[in-house]
Amino acid sequence: MTIENPQLISELREILATADSKQLQEFCVSAHPASVAELISTLSSQEAWEVLRHAPYPLRSEILSHLNEDLQIEIVGSLPRHEVAHLLADMSSDDRVSLFKKLSEHLQESILPALAQAEREDIRRLSAYREGTAGAVMTSDYATLSPQLTASQAIELLRKVAPDKETIYYTYVVDKDRKLLGLVSLRELIVAHRDARVNDIMNPEVIFARVDDDQEDVARKMQKYDLIALPVLNDDDVIVGIVTFDDVADIIVDEATEDFHGMAAISHKTHPVIGDINMRDASILLLVRTRLPWLLVLVFVNIFSSAGLAYFEDTIKAVVALVFFLPLLINSSGNAGSQAATLMVRALATGKARLSDWFFLLGKEVLVAGILGVILGAAVSFIGIFRAGPEVTLVISTTMVLTVLFGSLVGMSLPFLLSKLQLDPATASAPLITSIADIGGILIYLNIATYILKDMIQVNGGL
Amino acid sequence: MTIENPQLISELREILATADSKQLQEFCVSAHPASVAELISTLSSQEAWEVLRHAPYPLRSEILSHLNEDLQIEIVGSLPRHEVAHLLADMSSDDRVSLFKKLSEHLQESILPALAQAEREDIRRLSAYREGTAGAVMTSDYATLSPQLTASQAIELLRKVAPDKETIYYTYVVDKDRKLLGLVSLRELIVAHRDARVNDIMNPEVIFARVDDDQEDVARKMQKYDLIALPVLNDDDVIVGIVTFDDVADIIVDEATEDFHGMAAISHKTHPVIGDINMRDASILLLVRTRLPWLLVLVFVNIFSSAGLAYFEDTIKAVVALVFFLPLLINSSGNAGSQAATLMVRALATGKARLSDWFFLLGKEVLVAGILGVILGAAVSFIGIFRAGPEVTLVISTTMVLTVLFGSLVGMSLPFLLSKLQLDPATASAPLITSIADIGGILIYLNIATYILKDMIQVNGGL
Repeated sequence: MTIENPQLISELREILATADSKQLQEFCVSAHPASVAELISTLSSQEAWEVLRHAPYPLRSEILSHLNEDLQIEIVGSLPRHEVAHLLADMSSDDRVSLFKKLSEHLQESILPALAQAEREDIRRLSAYREGTAGAVMTSDYATLSPQLTASQAIELLRKVAPDKETIYYTYVVDKDRKLLGLVSLRELIVAHRDARVNDIMNPEVIFARVDDDQEDVARKMQKYDLIALPVLNDDDVIVGIVTFDDVADIIVDEATEDFHGMAAISHKTHPVIGDINMRDASILLLVRTRLPWLLVLVFVNIFSSAGLAYFEDTIKAVVALVFFLPLLINSSGNAGSQAATLMVRALATGKARLSDWFFLLGKEVLVAGILGVILGAAVSFIGIFRAGPEVTLVISTTMVLTVLFGSLVGMSLPFLLSKLQLDPATASAPLITSIADIGGILIYLNIATYILKDMIQVNGGL
Repeated sequence: MTIENPQLISELREILATADSKQLQEFCVSAHPASVAELISTLSSQEAWEVLRHAPYPLRSEILSHLNEDLQIEIVGSLPRHEVAHLLADMSSDDRVSLFKKLSEHLQESILPALAQAEREDIRRLSAYREGTAGAVMTSDYATLSPQLTASQAIELLRKVAPDKETIYYTYVVDKDRKLLGLVSLRELIVAHRDARVNDIMNPEVIFARVDDDQEDVARKMQKYDLIALPVLNDDDVIVGIVTFDDVADIIVDEATEDFHGMAAISHKTHPVIGDINMRDASILLLVRTRLPWLLVLVFVNIFSSAGLAYFEDTIKAVVALVFFLPLLINSSGNAGSQAATLMVRALATGKARLSDWFFLLGKEVLVAGILGVILGAAVSFIGIFRAGPEVTLVISTTMVLTVLFGSLVGMSLPFLLSKLQLDPATASAPLITSIADIGGILIYLNIATYILKDMIQVNGGL
């Protein structure tokens, strides 16, 4: 995180050096927990705990849950288990389980017995859901109402449970089996007549998610309908949790980061995931492991480029000037392809393109890439005329039109193809498309050259 | 947008064909306004209005504000001005001004007199803020309280104003000059004793934004502190609007799209912005205008590659096999550079890297890229040994190490350099870095080749 006021870090270090308990406590309560956590994040885990342990409960847990996960794990790993149990007990249900899941198995087993039964069961229940699903991001701290209550009874109830709930602005009306009947907002409860029944105020058409739904779909749904919270139901229509608005932005940012890295051929298969880590703290090994796999794969893909060039050795030997324009032509093709791929990957991710539009969009891409190719072809013939003969100029301008078209069609199609194969369209990385565009570009270029320049090749080849 | 149930579109078309007012009205009230808008979006603007005009006020305005902006403008442009005035009056303050700003000047002038004075002034005030700032995304529909009220008086007041406010979950305590004194949430009001003073319940340490703050910073702040709404203050600390949680996700998605397109050398200078448009609806001209500028620039950047190759004509002529490995080497360099650039652009955008870390991260990149280069160098020497002599193999493996290092350092530095120059780091597009890496790569490659292979070049050159 970027610290807005770096001077605060030195102030914190000064207080830490004096080891004055009163000042450390004051520091912890002086600002928003997120701001305190941000400053503590600049310290080692020992120092961080030295500050944090001066915060009163439950603030201590709240600051802890704003720290990055690595630091949380380090701190928790060094504490006695009764302290860990206390910290976990005070955390919100979703933060608690996501920290718990990251702890070593040994630590998990030693802490579980120290927790109260309700929390233990909550952790067991929530940690069963697969990462990346609604179940894995939801919290159990939601409020429910029964339909027979009056508005004023409902408000009185919410008043009492408020401290333990993540939100009381949306409450869920359930029957005795906790099946979801409707949604009522605190706004509606306040506006309603005090004796009106919840049953009559509630909206029975609730937008919800299933436990197995992809977190990205959950975020998109909440964004579309402007929801503060979304209930998560199991297959029996029983409410088992809610996802709150503050998770939406986090999910969107994480998914965008994953797509960004995918487009640049950066692997997300490593653990920990590179996008979650501050660049200063990312280890050399992790950085190598995220970058090497695709670079290596692409080296071997590029052997086909080499083979293509070797096949046309005679043409190249005869007209060496062809080589001068090689990077220009294959780059233009790769660039147009990256553009087309990025437009499609992002449009598919934001819902601005549908899989079923593929053929329609392919037709459009032929037109767009055709126009781009002709303009770029004109530009290179302008360059060519000054630096090469008319024949070579004809070769490079014709090649430009065709390679830009080829690269663009590959670039726009690959994300659709990957989606159809149930793969992440963002795997259609710019480097992969560039490599494919290169191979195609080289074959187009040297075939055209061999055809148009056949007289020159024979003359030179005869030397 | 992707329609979840395409069958609903045909049902809507059937109802539209029968022109049955009752059924059309039922359709409008049958689902969430966002869902209705999604279906209407598939129609022409005339058809869309034919449906929409059956929705009762103010639902009509709400559905309208969920349509994409182009369709909104088309519909509004075809309506009599009293109808437009009515629609605008019912819209929320931020949606109203953002639609109004997009209308033609002629239409704006004809509609303004038809609006009530309060709305007219609200539009004038809000439209004065620069696009992309807190002022431009905020709404005027927020609730304020005076500090002397008791909790129960405050709740009673909120009850009355609720229908006109975008949120009543956060209310802002202001003095008689509307200077911000504190924040009180509805949750706190409900939990507090009914006779407690707002002054004593409120939190005086309010997190806020200034009207000129970048919308991206506003979104990041709201995400960091998990806020439902953020007050926007002018330079006199007077509250002039709020940004609500539902804007945050929209801002984050828009900014990510802009960065995505930036990284692929797609221009965001066009109007309308390509990221806002469904790919089916994007015009050929718009697509060409967003893609052509950088492609053309890069063609001219690539002239340096051509010049570099031409300079080493003798070396290439002497050892044509060097050409076979050219795409492989410059691609690997460009790929490593794109990876480094993407990691940095995204880390800077999500706050996982700081500008002040540049030199530290540069040192780290030397290590990472060095390791990557050595491994890739080993991989190409394996290929080289089968396809070229030992001298050429030495040239390509040495070149691989150095070009991967060069590309990576360019890639990781460019985003920092652009940030320092107050430019968008996402302008450091992969294609630009690829082109720079090419130029450097070609010079490194052919210098090394000329040096190591000097005996072969002299022998062949003597032919």
